[in-house]
Amino acid sequence: MTAGLLAGFLRDARLRVDDALGRMLPVPPDCPPIISEAMRYSVFAGGKRLRPVLTLAAADAVARSAARPASGPDVDSHILALPAACAIELLHTYSLVHDDLPAMDDDTLRRGRPTLHVVYGEGIAILAGDGLHTEAFALLAREPAGSDPALAARKLRVVQLVAHAAGATGMVGGQAIDLQAAGQAPGRGVTLDADGLKAMHARKTGALIRASAVSGAIMAGASDDLIHAVDRYATELGLAFQIVDDILDVEGDAASLGKTAGKDATGAKPTYPALFGLARSKELAEACRVQALAAIEGAGLTDGWLPAIAEWIVTRRN
Amino acid sequence: MTAGLLAGFLRDARLRVDDALGRMLPVPPDCPPIISEAMRYSVFAGGKRLRPVLTLAAADAVARSAARPASGPDVDSHILALPAACAIELLHTYSLVHDDLPAMDDDTLRRGRPTLHVVYGEGIAILAGDGLHTEAFALLAREPAGSDPALAARKLRVVQLVAHAAGATGMVGGQAIDLQAAGQAPGRGVTLDADGLKAMHARKTGALIRASAVSGAIMAGASDDLIHAVDRYATELGLAFQIVDDILDVEGDAASLGKTAGKDATGAKPTYPALFGLARSKELAEACRVQALAAIEGAGLTDGWLPAIAEWIVTRRN
Repeated sequence: MTAGLLAGFLRDARLRVDDALGRMLPVPPDCPPIISEAMRYSVFAGGKRLRPVLTLAAADAVARSAARPASGPDVDSHILALPAACAIELLHTYSLVHDDLPAMDDDTLRRGRPTLHVVYGEGIAILAGDGLHTEAFALLAREPAGSDPALAARKLRVVQLVAHAAGATGMVGGQAIDLQAAGQAPGRGVTLDADGLKAMHARKTGALIRASAVSGAIMAGASDDLIHAVDRYATELGLAFQIVDDILDVEGDAASLGKTAGKDATGAKPTYPALFGLARSKELAEACRVQALAAIEGAGLTDGWLPAIAEWIVTRRN
Repeated sequence: MTAGLLAGFLRDARLRVDDALGRMLPVPPDCPPIISEAMRYSVFAGGKRLRPVLTLAAADAVARSAARPASGPDVDSHILALPAACAIELLHTYSLVHDDLPAMDDDTLRRGRPTLHVVYGEGIAILAGDGLHTEAFALLAREPAGSDPALAARKLRVVQLVAHAAGATGMVGGQAIDLQAAGQAPGRGVTLDADGLKAMHARKTGALIRASAVSGAIMAGASDDLIHAVDRYATELGLAFQIVDDILDVEGDAASLGKTAGKDATGAKPTYPALFGLARSKELAEACRVQALAAIEGAGLTDGWLPAIAEWIVTRRN
């Protein structure tokens, strides 16, 4: 699979996701204009769309697999997985909006543009994040529409999975530990060693990346064995993603990252390069890619885009 | 139905809800201790539990109704409706935590105790609110457990209903309009007349109160006619609740309210007493109660606690 072919898949998947997000987000008069605008400002800011791409790619890999069960709704795997892909992007976007707030990471630049609270004020930014958060669950329950009991069961399973990954046991909990490590929880600071850093990232970014891939597999009707393989793949991918993020924060510049570079070094937050050095951090990221590939090879899920996505995550420059 | 009998129902319903919330909220090691503690600090602060009480009462009224369909899971209506009752209380609590933040209403006292951000800092308060928000949807999808297709269909319908009520089209949108009216959305201020005030409250508090009652009716297996009657009842109840809230803010004191009294008059926010005077505001609240009663009388839903709850809402002193 060459990088050129992956680029085509990524372009197509992003177009599908952006088109669906545009249709799915609430509009006036149902929704007050200021909130609708603020939600769209954050969602359509040109992100990588890694998570929804992963959802669609996992659904596609399951659909191509010989081990896929035959029962369930007879619909294209992309159509089945698209609402979950979009819902997870909404959750990711809400988390960025809240993380950027002055009381959290206090960032003023995101995806190359002023952060939401800089443009709309803190109050509206908190609310727009909340609106994106709720909308994700509305979408997961609503689409794909249909009264097929197998479809209903998959949707309920995905709501639980995604909520577990996004909430206090996952992403929110990880951000809380991050605040404690950065000394922003009065009287409740913590110091993270390498294991603590890994556990923090497993919650903060890893959990939602895992849920992205697994929800695609569930919506496409994967067996428990396939779901388990996709989960192991995405666990390694999530860790690689974070290690590379830390590396890019050292090596990158604001223009290509679209956010404030060198931010980690100015705070008290631990990073992979700080703990292991740049060279060893790159080896760790590559080791994750190899492990990710091994997980899907064992389950016959290498037909499709999952291997190339792992390669992209490790070699990306932004 | 005397006030003494209602007090017994309220006590029993609150005990059930508090017990279930205690079991359902995440705990360490699944959840970082600081977030688990912060979530519980807000949830167990001695609120009225109006919304979950309403969910249980609506489910009970439907179960007593002659028009209730016989199909669906054969379980006590309270057991079917309890997770939705708890989920809506979690959503209500998250909204209070975020509304109290300095960037929003900037309140330091809530339910008689320091607000969450005063105790844990703003960052953790935002995250604890986010955690409660996600947990509500996890709970709606997870419980009551079971593979009955009718139960799955009801749960998916409730997730959609509750999300619509809580999100940008409902509660979040109402709070955004409130911020605009209070001059806290830079360059986007609005001035509310009586109709605008009613529309703002219909979103900000009305939508979730309606969803509380309607989700109880759905979980108990109500027909669309019964659901519609419960919705009309709860729409009137929600408006009465807000009018009385505004009256109590003028007449009450911090000791019995458990929050800062006279807060409305110090801000630029419009209120019912400011627009209509105290006497006329009380007449409006009573008119809502009469309309609420008419809605459930027509559908045969007066057996149970719904009439007494409407009376309580209009005559309450805190």
